[in-house]
Amino acid sequence: MDHRDRPVLGIDLGGTKILAAVVDPNGTILSRSKRKTKSEKGPADVLERMAACVRDAVQAAGLQMSDIASAGVGAPGPLDPIRGIIIDTPNLKFVDVHLKDELESRISVPVFVDNDVNVGTYGEFVYGAARGVQDVVGLFVGTGLGGGVIINGKLHHGFSLNGGELGHMILDPDGPVCGCGNHGCLEAFSSRTAIQREIESAIQAGKPSIIPELVKGDMSQITSSVLKKAFESNDPVVEKTLKTACEYLGIAVGSLLNILSPEVVVLGGGVVEALPDLFVKQVRKKAFKIAFPICCKDVRIVASELGDDAVILGAAALGRQRLAEAN
Amino acid sequence: MDHRDRPVLGIDLGGTKILAAVVDPNGTILSRSKRKTKSEKGPADVLERMAACVRDAVQAAGLQMSDIASAGVGAPGPLDPIRGIIIDTPNLKFVDVHLKDELESRISVPVFVDNDVNVGTYGEFVYGAARGVQDVVGLFVGTGLGGGVIINGKLHHGFSLNGGELGHMILDPDGPVCGCGNHGCLEAFSSRTAIQREIESAIQAGKPSIIPELVKGDMSQITSSVLKKAFESNDPVVEKTLKTACEYLGIAVGSLLNILSPEVVVLGGGVVEALPDLFVKQVRKKAFKIAFPICCKDVRIVASELGDDAVILGAAALGRQRLAEAN
Repeated sequence: MDHRDRPVLGIDLGGTKILAAVVDPNGTILSRSKRKTKSEKGPADVLERMAACVRDAVQAAGLQMSDIASAGVGAPGPLDPIRGIIIDTPNLKFVDVHLKDELESRISVPVFVDNDVNVGTYGEFVYGAARGVQDVVGLFVGTGLGGGVIINGKLHHGFSLNGGELGHMILDPDGPVCGCGNHGCLEAFSSRTAIQREIESAIQAGKPSIIPELVKGDMSQITSSVLKKAFESNDPVVEKTLKTACEYLGIAVGSLLNILSPEVVVLGGGVVEALPDLFVKQVRKKAFKIAFPICCKDVRIVASELGDDAVILGAAALGRQRLAEAN
Repeated sequence: MDHRDRPVLGIDLGGTKILAAVVDPNGTILSRSKRKTKSEKGPADVLERMAACVRDAVQAAGLQMSDIASAGVGAPGPLDPIRGIIIDTPNLKFVDVHLKDELESRISVPVFVDNDVNVGTYGEFVYGAARGVQDVVGLFVGTGLGGGVIINGKLHHGFSLNGGELGHMILDPDGPVCGCGNHGCLEAFSSRTAIQREIESAIQAGKPSIIPELVKGDMSQITSSVLKKAFESNDPVVEKTLKTACEYLGIAVGSLLNILSPEVVVLGGGVVEALPDLFVKQVRKKAFKIAFPICCKDVRIVASELGDDAVILGAAALGRQRLAEAN
């Protein structure tokens, strides 16, 4: 059977869990499986768990490993997407892990690797909110704030193979400190971590909010669904904080419209999925106010359609695409 | 004779002057000519002057128009680089001018048009400071601040065909007002216009400076060479203002390294050409401090090598390249 007609694997290697899915050529998920990452046990152990997770998914689809054409993996960067090597990933504590080679030797199908946020953007491009267009920017708001760029239908990597770090555009050199050490990165304004920090500091300053009640005093529990609940209860602290986060995200998108001129900007990640209408409306308003009219014409700023499946579907699509390019 | 062996024309359509050059396949300028633009006389008049300028250059090279393979034009945008139409250019007051068709009918060679800053970046890519690499960012500091982006060896236009507006990245939403109406664009911090504004305001606030003496009281005469003279005399107002301009340019370059991940960043335009060592050193220091180490590795931040010839040489290279693609 032509490899284009065969199912592929999509794998999402996250900090806490590994997700795998068998995906048919139409993008339908035939089966899924899940394991804990347990990165503290080291790369060899994680690789064994990835292989086991993959075998579970293949079996759940009623298939043999030999039925699978290829596998794509979305992994945290920085990484070398050509050789499939994780260079040095803080949240897995992986250094120089040859993910492609190691996984290929365990599952005996060709493996292709890319940055998880790139892969999520690619998923939206092939199967989701940005299908049918050639130039896409993806922005994913979670613990951090990741970005992916598609130019002329291809993921953009640049000279370092690690471009597309949209969360680390500087929006105000006097802004809050970012995890990367700089001041005023987009991530320091609009990630869930930044939103939590602002809410905590407003509450400490005595602003009235239902958040302490919702999280029973444990501020580490300000999840996306807590934010949604508080926003929908018109909590003034959460309302103001989220609007500021959207404002800065809108400024970043405005600049990106001028720099990259995408046709579609996809907003995703847990925080956006909890409140998609708020994010899309506020970001659109600000971005279209900032960017040149010609860079806004017919541009769509939309919410992710694939949600949690963006990475596994993008990984499957990438595995399929890169196998075709290699042959 | 194969068109690849024939000379081409490079044309720089500026706000005050038209420059044309006949360029051989090695990038050697065989002849030059120059006319005033006189845009106030309207597009038809400017087009006649462009055609006359071209004929002068061809004659000065001892050639006939039939010896010329093609012509490239760098023109102010926004424009449609595929159809060669200037959409609406404030500094020429051109609206919907079919530059490609109109010029082709006057000079009888295939004409290709692109944004002047894109064309300048392309010149540095083919013949100047960025030759031999695939991913380039060009930033040109003059009255405004223009940018060009080359990705995988091709000028990046994006969905609108007008991307690469790097001067309008927002670096501080509370920053000075920009000509585009936003606050805190790169152009509002680092263009010559912004530098002049800061110097004037420091002098009005009573700061000691030799600038009033150098320009004989006429602040509109703060040219790039006046800035150079004052800086080299250790004028404290000019020193501080230029360092701030470099600081913001460095912040923008740092963000662009993270977003686009170029191999070479070329800094050009009149202000940089007057003080290349200052700009390169300061921008490099700031940008490499901001961007991720992996996006800085082996990256070169350098001054333009072609100076005033960047646009005519880039236009010639573009005319040659796009003719080859069309055939």
